[in-house]
Amino acid sequence: MSAGTSNMLVCGRSLKVFLKEIENFHGWKAPGVVLGGIMVDLAQELVGPDVEADAIVESRHCLPDAIQLFTPCTIGNGWLKVLDWDKFALSLYDRRRLIGHRVWLDLSKARLFPNFYNWYMRKVPKKDLSLEVLLETILDARRSILSSHAISVTRFYQRKKKGNIGVCPGCGEAYPTSQGSQCRACQGDGYYELQLKKAV
Amino acid sequence: MSAGTSNMLVCGRSLKVFLKEIENFHGWKAPGVVLGGIMVDLAQELVGPDVEADAIVESRHCLPDAIQLFTPCTIGNGWLKVLDWDKFALSLYDRRRLIGHRVWLDLSKARLFPNFYNWYMRKVPKKDLSLEVLLETILDARRSILSSHAISVTRFYQRKKKGNIGVCPGCGEAYPTSQGSQCRACQGDGYYELQLKKAV
Repeated sequence: MSAGTSNMLVCGRSLKVFLKEIENFHGWKAPGVVLGGIMVDLAQELVGPDVEADAIVESRHCLPDAIQLFTPCTIGNGWLKVLDWDKFALSLYDRRRLIGHRVWLDLSKARLFPNFYNWYMRKVPKKDLSLEVLLETILDARRSILSSHAISVTRFYQRKKKGNIGVCPGCGEAYPTSQGSQCRACQGDGYYELQLKKAV
Repeated sequence: MSAGTSNMLVCGRSLKVFLKEIENFHGWKAPGVVLGGIMVDLAQELVGPDVEADAIVESRHCLPDAIQLFTPCTIGNGWLKVLDWDKFALSLYDRRRLIGHRVWLDLSKARLFPNFYNWYMRKVPKKDLSLEVLLETILDARRSILSSHAISVTRFYQRKKKGNIGVCPGCGEAYPTSQGSQCRACQGDGYYELQLKKAV
């Protein structure tokens, strides 16, 4: 850890705690979650401390975990929406007023950090750059590779209401009747086959 | 907390720690996450301790958080898949052998706990049942309202490889070129409008 990062706070945590929480939750200190956390930190500062903010991430890689770790928004509580766009950007916005800030990885700025840029743009094989060097580059660059703009949110902000629930005549499990006369699995979308039990 | 739950372990935690972790992550002791944790506990026992297990949940409500809290699988690390089916079921499976166990809320068993059953099937207004009574009912019922079967996983187990990445000519941000000549936002799927800055 260089002198420049030793007193750094990210999302209100020391760098050590920040990285440890990422490792505990995500399984390893993934560069995408580390940069994601730095983006959350910036977005939180822009949105301000007294706002109940919902979140949208534009990739299902890494960014959902940065949001879930460092904000109250999770997939399961409905305050985080995940768009599978593979863009490295996220937004925090006031859930009532629908205004907030979008933060994204700005390539024109990231070019000044060739290690990071070449890794992100997949211009070098992963094995040619150690995790340690990559993380050092990200922690050195910090917000200098990000941009942000103030936004009004126009889609994806609705909390879908749960509709009527019924008993699926196929499997006997509960399902939303809005999906049809049977549940999705019984309609043929299932992802599993039952294993026959071995006689013992 | 009744005598029957005071020594209970769920996912290797005391009940107190289990509930506290849910509250910290999800924002409150949501009944769906509490029951989800009990389902994870059963699925983990069935799959066994030495298996690297991926997870599939069949609802985006509550269950993703139970998986993310009590297993190594998260949205952001790709080990958890979320199906938006609104079925109260989850599977843990060996990611190499693609065999595992599915655990679901069994309505035929849940009928024995009318408070819970009527709440889940939305037969009573939410306000007519206190959170306290509902949680007590769930902790009293525990696994007795669940069923499980051994499964082979036939879909949704792939880890999608990231493809080529390019610079979107519309916004200048990085995007996967497999999505077309522009990113999804520049193709018209965006969720935000830029706010004009007020003159200061």
